[in-house]
Amino acid sequence: MTQVTFYLTPDGKLLDQMSMEQIRDLLASGEGLLWVDMEDVTTGDGEFLSNAFCFHPLAVADCISKNIHPPKIDDFEDYLFIIVHGINYHIDSEVVETTELALFVGKNYVVTSHDIPMRSVSSVLDRVRKDGRPMRRGVDFLAHDLIDALVDNFMPTIEEMDERNDQLEAEVLREPKRDTLMSIMQLKRSILALTRVIMPQREIVNGLSRGDYPFISERAQIYYRNIHDHLVRIEMLTLGLRDMTESVLSTYLSSVSNRMNEVMKVLTLIATIFIPLTFIAGIYGMNFAYMPELEWRYGYFIILIVMAVVGVCLAVYFRRRKWL
Amino acid sequence: MTQVTFYLTPDGKLLDQMSMEQIRDLLASGEGLLWVDMEDVTTGDGEFLSNAFCFHPLAVADCISKNIHPPKIDDFEDYLFIIVHGINYHIDSEVVETTELALFVGKNYVVTSHDIPMRSVSSVLDRVRKDGRPMRRGVDFLAHDLIDALVDNFMPTIEEMDERNDQLEAEVLREPKRDTLMSIMQLKRSILALTRVIMPQREIVNGLSRGDYPFISERAQIYYRNIHDHLVRIEMLTLGLRDMTESVLSTYLSSVSNRMNEVMKVLTLIATIFIPLTFIAGIYGMNFAYMPELEWRYGYFIILIVMAVVGVCLAVYFRRRKWL
Amino acid sequence: MTQVTFYLTPDGKLLDQMSMEQIRDLLASGEGLLWVDMEDVTTGDGEFLSNAFCFHPLAVADCISKNIHPPKIDDFEDYLFIIVHGINYHIDSEVVETTELALFVGKNYVVTSHDIPMRSVSSVLDRVRKDGRPMRRGVDFLAHDLIDALVDNFMPTIEEMDERNDQLEAEVLREPKRDTLMSIMQLKRSILALTRVIMPQREIVNGLSRGDYPFISERAQIYYRNIHDHLVRIEMLTLGLRDMTESVLSTYLSSVSNRMNEVMKVLTLIATIFIPLTFIAGIYGMNFAYMPELEWRYGYFIILIVMAVVGVCLAVYFRRRKWL
Amino acid sequence: MTQVTFYLTPDGKLLDQMSMEQIRDLLASGEGLLWVDMEDVTTGDGEFLSNAFCFHPLAVADCISKNIHPPKIDDFEDYLFIIVHGINYHIDSEVVETTELALFVGKNYVVTSHDIPMRSVSSVLDRVRKDGRPMRRGVDFLAHDLIDALVDNFMPTIEEMDERNDQLEAEVLREPKRDTLMSIMQLKRSILALTRVIMPQREIVNGLSRGDYPFISERAQIYYRNIHDHLVRIEMLTLGLRDMTESVLSTYLSSVSNRMNEVMKVLTLIATIFIPLTFIAGIYGMNFAYMPELEWRYGYFIILIVMAVVGVCLAVYFRRRKWL
Amino acid sequence: MTQVTFYLTPDGKLLDQMSMEQIRDLLASGEGLLWVDMEDVTTGDGEFLSNAFCFHPLAVADCISKNIHPPKIDDFEDYLFIIVHGINYHIDSEVVETTELALFVGKNYVVTSHDIPMRSVSSVLDRVRKDGRPMRRGVDFLAHDLIDALVDNFMPTIEEMDERNDQLEAEVLREPKRDTLMSIMQLKRSILALTRVIMPQREIVNGLSRGDYPFISERAQIYYRNIHDHLVRIEMLTLGLRDMTESVLSTYLSSVSNRMNEVMKVLTLIATIFIPLTFIAGIYGMNFAYMPELEWRYGYFIILIVMAVVGVCLAVYFRRRKWL
Repeated sequence: MTQVTFYLTPDGKLLDQMSMEQIRDLLASGEGLLWVDMEDVTTGDGEFLSNAFCFHPLAVADCISKNIHPPKIDDFEDYLFIIVHGINYHIDSEVVETTELALFVGKNYVVTSHDIPMRSVSSVLDRVRKDGRPMRRGVDFLAHDLIDALVDNFMPTIEEMDERNDQLEAEVLREPKRDTLMSIMQLKRSILALTRVIMPQREIVNGLSRGDYPFISERAQIYYRNIHDHLVRIEMLTLGLRDMTESVLSTYLSSVSNRMNEVMKVLTLIATIFIPLTFIAGIYGMNFAYMPELEWRYGYFIILIVMAVVGVCLAVYFRRRKWL
Repeated sequence: MTQVTFYLTPDGKLLDQMSMEQIRDLLASGEGLLWVDMEDVTTGDGEFLSNAFCFHPLAVADCISKNIHPPKIDDFEDYLFIIVHGINYHIDSEVVETTELALFVGKNYVVTSHDIPMRSVSSVLDRVRKDGRPMRRGVDFLAHDLIDALVDNFMPTIEEMDERNDQLEAEVLREPKRDTLMSIMQLKRSILALTRVIMPQREIVNGLSRGDYPFISERAQIYYRNIHDHLVRIEMLTLGLRDMTESVLSTYLSSVSNRMNEVMKVLTLIATIFIPLTFIAGIYGMNFAYMPELEWRYGYFIILIVMAVVGVCLAVYFRRRKWL
Repeated sequence: MTQVTFYLTPDGKLLDQMSMEQIRDLLASGEGLLWVDMEDVTTGDGEFLSNAFCFHPLAVADCISKNIHPPKIDDFEDYLFIIVHGINYHIDSEVVETTELALFVGKNYVVTSHDIPMRSVSSVLDRVRKDGRPMRRGVDFLAHDLIDALVDNFMPTIEEMDERNDQLEAEVLREPKRDTLMSIMQLKRSILALTRVIMPQREIVNGLSRGDYPFISERAQIYYRNIHDHLVRIEMLTLGLRDMTESVLSTYLSSVSNRMNEVMKVLTLIATIFIPLTFIAGIYGMNFAYMPELEWRYGYFIILIVMAVVGVCLAVYFRRRKWL
Repeated sequence: MTQVTFYLTPDGKLLDQMSMEQIRDLLASGEGLLWVDMEDVTTGDGEFLSNAFCFHPLAVADCISKNIHPPKIDDFEDYLFIIVHGINYHIDSEVVETTELALFVGKNYVVTSHDIPMRSVSSVLDRVRKDGRPMRRGVDFLAHDLIDALVDNFMPTIEEMDERNDQLEAEVLREPKRDTLMSIMQLKRSILALTRVIMPQREIVNGLSRGDYPFISERAQIYYRNIHDHLVRIEMLTLGLRDMTESVLSTYLSSVSNRMNEVMKVLTLIATIFIPLTFIAGIYGMNFAYMPELEWRYGYFIILIVMAVVGVCLAVYFRRRKWL
Repeated sequence: MTQVTFYLTPDGKLLDQMSMEQIRDLLASGEGLLWVDMEDVTTGDGEFLSNAFCFHPLAVADCISKNIHPPKIDDFEDYLFIIVHGINYHIDSEVVETTELALFVGKNYVVTSHDIPMRSVSSVLDRVRKDGRPMRRGVDFLAHDLIDALVDNFMPTIEEMDERNDQLEAEVLREPKRDTLMSIMQLKRSILALTRVIMPQREIVNGLSRGDYPFISERAQIYYRNIHDHLVRIEMLTLGLRDMTESVLSTYLSSVSNRMNEVMKVLTLIATIFIPLTFIAGIYGMNFAYMPELEWRYGYFIILIVMAVVGVCLAVYFRRRKWL
């Protein structure tokens, strides 16, 4: 596991790389702001969390487990335990992968835990490293910055999906293939998965913005509200995207059946015109001893003309009825 | 950016084109009614909004951003921040475009902000220019007039969509083409988008009409209620329109499959009648040394009659079973 | 516009055709019961309503407007403003037309307004003309009788739709045509429209029966509850009707595809039996110099038998596999 | 109409066949427990109900009317008026018929009314006749026993539908016919109708079990809760049944299209193999003066071999591509 | 029936196999913790439950009945009666079987009842047998351990279903058969059944974690909350699984229709190319006395070339239009 530790002293200095004893003292003092970021938490780290911070064993177990847990807030009086989801969209495989960020928000500390490196956390870490800015406004704003960075990563995904959808639409209109169908269905599935990630998240953030929790100051609530509005907008876009994907799917299906119809029409054209003509040729291929037409001087040419007339009549009739 | 400023003095005179200092004095006096309309707000304008009106940075950021935000009301005690949506329907491309109007409603001022020129705002501006009427009844009625003008623009769009739907239905019944399908699906998509614009809007207006907000006087609430009823009616019409579009879509699909069925029936008719006849002709085209029928005096004519009988019988049988 | 006026004096006499001055005096006295019914309200009538009754301009505007407004109750303290919907079902065109009845219910008066003549209003007018009965129990019962008469008109429509549905089902089972499909879809659309009329109406009547409004006495509430139960029943019937129409639609579609399948099977039968036979005939129609079978005494007959055997075998094989 | 009357005296004796005067006295005494069961209530009976029990005219009208009313409870202070639904499932016609039981529950009486004989009521009547048991625990338990008996009759119906569904599934897998489709759709419709009967009923019983009504003692509430749980279970089973019927429907449709596909494949096999062969035979049936192959000694046999090779190659190719 | 009894004395000793008298004394003392586990409860056992524990007859009846009851909690003041569901998934038949665990939770006892052996109960029994651990933290934690073990068994089922789904997807892509469709539909049905088991369960556990019931201590509530989160996660996974199964179903259907289309295209290719050629051969097979081409020296070869050209042209034309 990797662990990064920052401490902003009450007089505004930024420390890092502290020993466990120092951390314990800082927590006991109840002053300043401590941020511990842990990646890939092991059972050992879990013990550290239990001992140093006295976190509830169930919350610690959630951090250690590699499973994806649904977004939630648990209010343990002394601290909040928040799980929020980020997404990674792999454009090649068109799969939406959910990543999980767990936050403990206490009086003067924030502990974050995630299984794999997360762009959103790294960007906040970098900004802290530069000048400590995100830590200067308190735990609620630090937690806000982390969740905000996570939610900001949704937009590019939606844009990529939108682009992918346009691309698939073009493909469907140009030349629909079996693979196209697979891609459309995969995209649709990803959008559904995305919707399911966003909706509970929105509820969580709504709770944070409503002042249900003591650690979120009134001044910060409007910023959480902003994340909430952001998520509502993302949801609207996702719904629009879903409609468009369904529309591409319908286009694909109608396109395939259209092509099939054209093929069938050609078969019908050829068959219905030539079958009667072949029959006529068959008649004069019979070997009856007495068939007067065969003896006529221009019998052959007359029959050729008859055939041409029949064929043209049929073709005209079909065109008239708009079958061809 | 373009900025238009009106000020109605407490004794009913209408001023315009004020300097920023004047605006600041007017706001400080807390009297009269100031309306500032801003189009295409830049970062510089944002600073003006923050400085002169002390608006919250998040609200100002929403005005500057060119993104579409979901409709919402934020109550910042000193002022309301409202986002409502208007629509532009492009009948050629059948696309519904959402436009966004942001309103700040304070004690004695209204600030409006939008990214592109909006017909609804211009019409209210013109009426103010004429005789100041919309500003004479207070901030709540000015905001009402603006939102009302926005909502009034929904009706023509619905009527255009209705017309487009009738047109497509006629096209489907006359001669369905691939393009028709595309148009129907685009129209359906637009109607869905429209529904999604109307529903949250209705909730916003409902809140304004219920007296949840201090700046909306009781006398004005019934007028907001009226906009709400208007939106309910628009929603009902949209739902009816959606049903009709789905019905046109079904008609299209059944029409295409119907046409296909007719084509298949003709193929069957021709094939099932001529295939047996061709077989008979084939028999008498064989070159066996001893085939008694070939020597008969009227063999040829008898066979022709047999063929005619077989053909007629098959045709009658098919008609009887209502296959043709 | 047409205007009918009745006044029931406190001592039970029934007057009609009063002048506007008389009406004003009656309203001022606050005694007796006045009913004014207005058809096709013009702007002039609107002014009369505003002046004599002091109705809110928005309510008066709703009466004048020829648009359909969603059902609603507005409580203006001095009076209730109620909009309810009736339906006209045109069995030929299968279209459900919504008609609108607006009621003002005050302390001692009821004002009704509608754009076109309504059977329900006429029937109550006739009963008043006879003996004043519907007016003798107060404004709440008069309003009840009007709404009840309106809702009673829903039942025949549902019965007509039910009948139409049975008729269409019979048609589908006998001989489905393209028109039948159009009719089914139109009926389905009408049922959907009907559902949308009934649902908000039910909510309105529910509110009236719950004692939310001062003008509805407790004794009358149970009667409004009865209208509510009636509407619940109508909704249940409508839902059942919708299921049945969807079932008829499925039957139609399966019937068409069934017919198509039968046609295809016949094509297959004929083609798969005769194509091989024609091939055999083709072989012996070849002009090779040395084809021993041709010289056999009974070659021709042998081949005819071979053909018959092949044909019968194929037919038996197909029947065995239940393809035919 | 048929009327059955039982009276349990306060000291536990059971009387029946009382005159109207006796009934009036018993009601006035407010002691003991009176049960009046009425079948097929006429207008005359309605007057009896109004006079003897002082029931509200609207409740009496519901009893007289032969229409089906939605399940409901009306609390008239002196008595409860309850409408619940039972079902009759006709397995031959696969139609679910709703029957209606109306109960008046007062201080010391229960009045039941139904249009046709009901098994559930008869069974309780029989148990009363035997030893008066269902009446010994008070009005709430008597009403409970009646509703419980009604709900118990739902289970056999669901089991019959389940069986019918299995039967239809077997039929679909063995040999799907047009009638099977009709039956499946009828069954699906019946299940939908059943769902609609159960859901409002569950709400009614839930209300009775929650202590909302004065005549239901706390001791009886847990028994009403039991009926509620029973209805929840029936609802779960109905939903499961609906899924299974939809699955049978899908199986049917896929089965039909599967069969069609097989038929089409055979057509393709025969046609694509024999059409080229027939063409080859056609070539050597031409009468050109100079066709060298015709003169060859083994031309005929060579061609036969060529044809066999072509046919086998095509068959192998098709099998390779898994088309056949 | 099988009955297992454990008793943890107040001073921490673990007893088992007690007589009914001992049990009665322990309950009377109100100390220690008694756990009685009953499998396949008979009417006789029911009497024991009624006598020894004074359980309500309806709760006892639920234990005796072999039916599946919906999950519920009944609060009988002296004890809670809880029904929760476990699942058994038979991977061969792809059927989800629901098993039922009934718990009575009292002041110092837990009674569990189930119809068939349950893995979850056995595992807790084993852990009690080893060192009494699950009983040392009180009735609420014992009940928690039992429900937790039950819910833990859901995960493997979901994983098996997931695997089955992948397997079916592979099968569909490789070679779709009729059986595959049956399997997909069965899996879909099982997932639906699973969803219906999980949802009410989640509500029950939510109630237990919210402190609605006196026997669940605050310390235990967070553990019940954990089960709730677990169920939410299972629900999310089930929904994802449902999407994937629907996607496999679509793939199957599109795969079948795709194959059909390919077959049809081959038929069209062969038919449309050879039918005209056969017609040409038919013409020169006619026996007219005067057909100049027949006499030409290279007539035969010219015609062969003509035929080849026609065939190639048609093939090129089809490929150009991307029909083949």
